[in-house]
Amino acid sequence: MNTPKHAVIVFLGGLMLSTMIHAETKTKSSTADPLVLWQDQTAKKTLMTFVRDVTDPESKKYVTPEDRVAVFDNDGTLWTEQPLYTQLLFTLNRVKELAPKHPEWKTEQPFKAILEHDEKTLKSMKEGDIAKLVAVTHAGMTEEQFEKDVDEFFKNQKHPQKKMNYTDMVYQPMVELIRYLQKNDFKVFIVTGGGVEFVRAFSEPVYGVPKENVIGSNLQYEYKSDGKTPELLRKAELVPPVDDKIGKPVHIQREIGRRPILAFGNSDGDFEMLKFTTESKGPRLGLILHHDDSQREYAYDKESRVGHLEEALDAAKREGWIVVSMKKDFKTVY
Amino acid sequence: MNTPKHAVIVFLGGLMLSTMIHAETKTKSSTADPLVLWQDQTAKKTLMTFVRDVTDPESKKYVTPEDRVAVFDNDGTLWTEQPLYTQLLFTLNRVKELAPKHPEWKTEQPFKAILEHDEKTLKSMKEGDIAKLVAVTHAGMTEEQFEKDVDEFFKNQKHPQKKMNYTDMVYQPMVELIRYLQKNDFKVFIVTGGGVEFVRAFSEPVYGVPKENVIGSNLQYEYKSDGKTPELLRKAELVPPVDDKIGKPVHIQREIGRRPILAFGNSDGDFEMLKFTTESKGPRLGLILHHDDSQREYAYDKESRVGHLEEALDAAKREGWIVVSMKKDFKTVY
Repeated sequence: MNTPKHAVIVFLGGLMLSTMIHAETKTKSSTADPLVLWQDQTAKKTLMTFVRDVTDPESKKYVTPEDRVAVFDNDGTLWTEQPLYTQLLFTLNRVKELAPKHPEWKTEQPFKAILEHDEKTLKSMKEGDIAKLVAVTHAGMTEEQFEKDVDEFFKNQKHPQKKMNYTDMVYQPMVELIRYLQKNDFKVFIVTGGGVEFVRAFSEPVYGVPKENVIGSNLQYEYKSDGKTPELLRKAELVPPVDDKIGKPVHIQREIGRRPILAFGNSDGDFEMLKFTTESKGPRLGLILHHDDSQREYAYDKESRVGHLEEALDAAKREGWIVVSMKKDFKTVY
Repeated sequence: MNTPKHAVIVFLGGLMLSTMIHAETKTKSSTADPLVLWQDQTAKKTLMTFVRDVTDPESKKYVTPEDRVAVFDNDGTLWTEQPLYTQLLFTLNRVKELAPKHPEWKTEQPFKAILEHDEKTLKSMKEGDIAKLVAVTHAGMTEEQFEKDVDEFFKNQKHPQKKMNYTDMVYQPMVELIRYLQKNDFKVFIVTGGGVEFVRAFSEPVYGVPKENVIGSNLQYEYKSDGKTPELLRKAELVPPVDDKIGKPVHIQREIGRRPILAFGNSDGDFEMLKFTTESKGPRLGLILHHDDSQREYAYDKESRVGHLEEALDAAKREGWIVVSMKKDFKTVY
């Protein structure tokens, strides 16, 4: 099977429960501002007008609740993806945890490079190297065991630069937006290039998005029924396509079966999802979160390998997509 | 790719909208019997006790709404699958409709056999023949076009033996049960061996199950964005595994991400889904619809190729699964 390097890296980009502090925004009266964490500017106004239009049965732009599907990318759209996708940091950490049981890794790449913090070798990893990492950190265990591994990571590890819990590095204005859409009978889905189970491990307590509304890249499973409880064993094999770029519309059709009316992304990996959502009849809204806030988070776009944003940013004006400035539109970030 | 004949046949087993007459059961007061179409026997009592237990916060068997996932097979569990899966009848009909544009089919198998009603040749179709049928009837068009083809079939064709609309051949006690579970905050999913888009074409008006809650066998898509509106072209290639037998738990984990607490099937294709659901901790319920009603529907099990029921029926007693008799438990069928 074809597993392009980019694809696997994206697959490794992906948070977790433990703290539920952020998820609960108290219900407000209908006259209260539903987006208090957003500055009163174009992005907020456009979002509120759109929601008013599609929920107003008297409006020409009315959309029935069945069809109110909104899709959000995860890495860089709902939480921080710098300096590396969290799922990739999980992978590197997992190799270190497993190393005592694998003395052979001291001389075997890419494990040796990880254990020795040899960044030069890590940056030149080939497809086969990445496949080896996926095989030992994401496969060969039951689904339940993998979820425990992810839980442990979130409980015990901090972000390498911000020194925060990963689950606290979620953008609160985005969580507020998800809640606002849900209250207006939108069905909100997360469509991530990362592994679906990695994001499902924290989507409910942190984002308020149920597991079944998380769509992502999939590993193939092996069904095992020799013990008491039938289990699914994770295999080191991707189910094509990876849920990134053209894979996003494919996964959306496969798992939702409707064209969304709102899409929110932050990188070129979301380009086709934005096009698929907005280039069709009826009211449609596309948004791109632009990371321009080096003080509160990170500033990057065309020069960044992680969360590379170029094609989609260039297309935004032509396509009528709203470019949301983290610096100017978010009152708060985390 | 491996495409066993059985798998493709199952893939071709799969209804449709137009009439919404059945879907609406009027809301009743909470004291009203929620399962009036079921005889007061073991199956009904077990279902009602189970629902009471898992929804009662005081009960030891209480299950939070997030985890109240119920899965239903489609062919033979929610609607008639005899004498052939409806999706297979759609396929044969589609070949006849397309034949005027394909004079070469007069001499090419398996098309020739279909056009000449040559049942002997049809029964000996090889994997390659079935792949040819899928290619011309299910692939090579956009998703929208395929849905129109399915709509047309349901509007214009009748069941070959009962002479009824296919959408009227849905088991009303099962629709009532779905509604009962939904009112008790169950998330009801259809898990079909048939093509997911075939069932999504009618799941909302007929069953009251939203498209995104239909899981089924998937064809691979090609993303096309050269025209005004980006489209998904259906390819003659199955995404493994077919959603039947061990494929059912795999698809459930992939698309829902939780182990269901209730599973309802009718054939050996549902065996692993029933095991995966019931052989685990906590309150669990497995049910098998037994077709023993030759007067009102059909009577078949171990001898039938379509909806073959043997392994799962033999296991029912050992596993504690409820065998629902269509004859004795259903007050009405359609």
